[in-house]
Amino acid sequence: MIEKKALTSAPINELLASRWSGRAYAADKPVDHKDLQSLLEAARWAPSCFGDEPWRYIVCDRFSNESAWQHACDCLAEGNRSWAVNAPVLILVCANSVFSGNGKPNRWGEYDTGAASMSICLEATSRGLMVHQMGGYDADKAREAFHVPDRYTTMAMMAVGYQLPENELPDDIRDRELSARRRSEHEKLFFAGDWDEAFLFTGD
Amino acid sequence: MIEKKALTSAPINELLASRWSGRAYAADKPVDHKDLQSLLEAARWAPSCFGDEPWRYIVCDRFSNESAWQHACDCLAEGNRSWAVNAPVLILVCANSVFSGNGKPNRWGEYDTGAASMSICLEATSRGLMVHQMGGYDADKAREAFHVPDRYTTMAMMAVGYQLPENELPDDIRDRELSARRRSEHEKLFFAGDWDEAFLFTGD
Repeated sequence: MIEKKALTSAPINELLASRWSGRAYAADKPVDHKDLQSLLEAARWAPSCFGDEPWRYIVCDRFSNESAWQHACDCLAEGNRSWAVNAPVLILVCANSVFSGNGKPNRWGEYDTGAASMSICLEATSRGLMVHQMGGYDADKAREAFHVPDRYTTMAMMAVGYQLPENELPDDIRDRELSARRRSEHEKLFFAGDWDEAFLFTGD
Repeated sequence: MIEKKALTSAPINELLASRWSGRAYAADKPVDHKDLQSLLEAARWAPSCFGDEPWRYIVCDRFSNESAWQHACDCLAEGNRSWAVNAPVLILVCANSVFSGNGKPNRWGEYDTGAASMSICLEATSRGLMVHQMGGYDADKAREAFHVPDRYTTMAMMAVGYQLPENELPDDIRDRELSARRRSEHEKLFFAGDWDEAFLFTGD
């Protein structure tokens, strides 16, 4: 995989630093069922409010169920489909809007599902796989195609697969694929003791 | 730290398997500022829709700003406060409900913030620290105490610190602290190709 480690201002764990969302998938390289199991198992052990596990994942593997994969691909926004069409696995992510125990609104359903999805991304990284999540897809179409009940919100479509080696990158995504990753300044995001009081990052 | 690895049905990365939400914090053991930096830096490199980085974290460290920490502690529901009072650091997690660029609703704000918070939990695990997120706190009180603008949703309060060694666990949380972690069956959470079509987990 092309290494594009986070350029961090403070040291972070190797796995977290190595994860990134590429776009150049190897279309002819399937993802082993055992690897998919481990990705889902990683999600399963994420924390959730009252242990409700509000996440649901619908796995569409082109090599074992082409029609489901095609349904997923058809839901993507054109800009995403142009590259995600090469991902051998597409996964629709859903979040339960109510607690499964008592049916009351769960205001942490999407938040907890985001954590579970992050676990999938990291498990993928540790297996040499790449995950790129997309918000750009037709949510109504996805709900209909995959019979998602009303109480679940579809959150994202995930592209999963192996990355192309650097010398096979297509020209139209080459620059974006190799450019450095960027993030906001700390003071916009992290506060100490009160809103807008910057949490100061000190050097080593 | 007391090891309580996930009892997984498929192998997952060591870091993901090791994370868990304990309740027995060592009240007298501060968290170094450098470690807090790394926790926040881990969140910073999480993925987000349009790279908007909707997460905000307000760090309340009892050892450097006792009044902010006390404000945070006062917001907790009683059941949580009983143990979280021993956490030297409490962090209020907020999610931007709109895109910072154009002010339009961001339906991924909470989802992406959940991913960033998961990164904090994992970075903590890799440093021998423990994070326990709580939904049980007074959101209105927290908004007021920390001057959180209306367009941000407060999602959780995080307890951060070092765990007590096993022989110092208080009686009232000892059993819960040592009991095995549990999760739902796979077929409830993971589907193949369509809703409610179980993604089958096969043995090794």
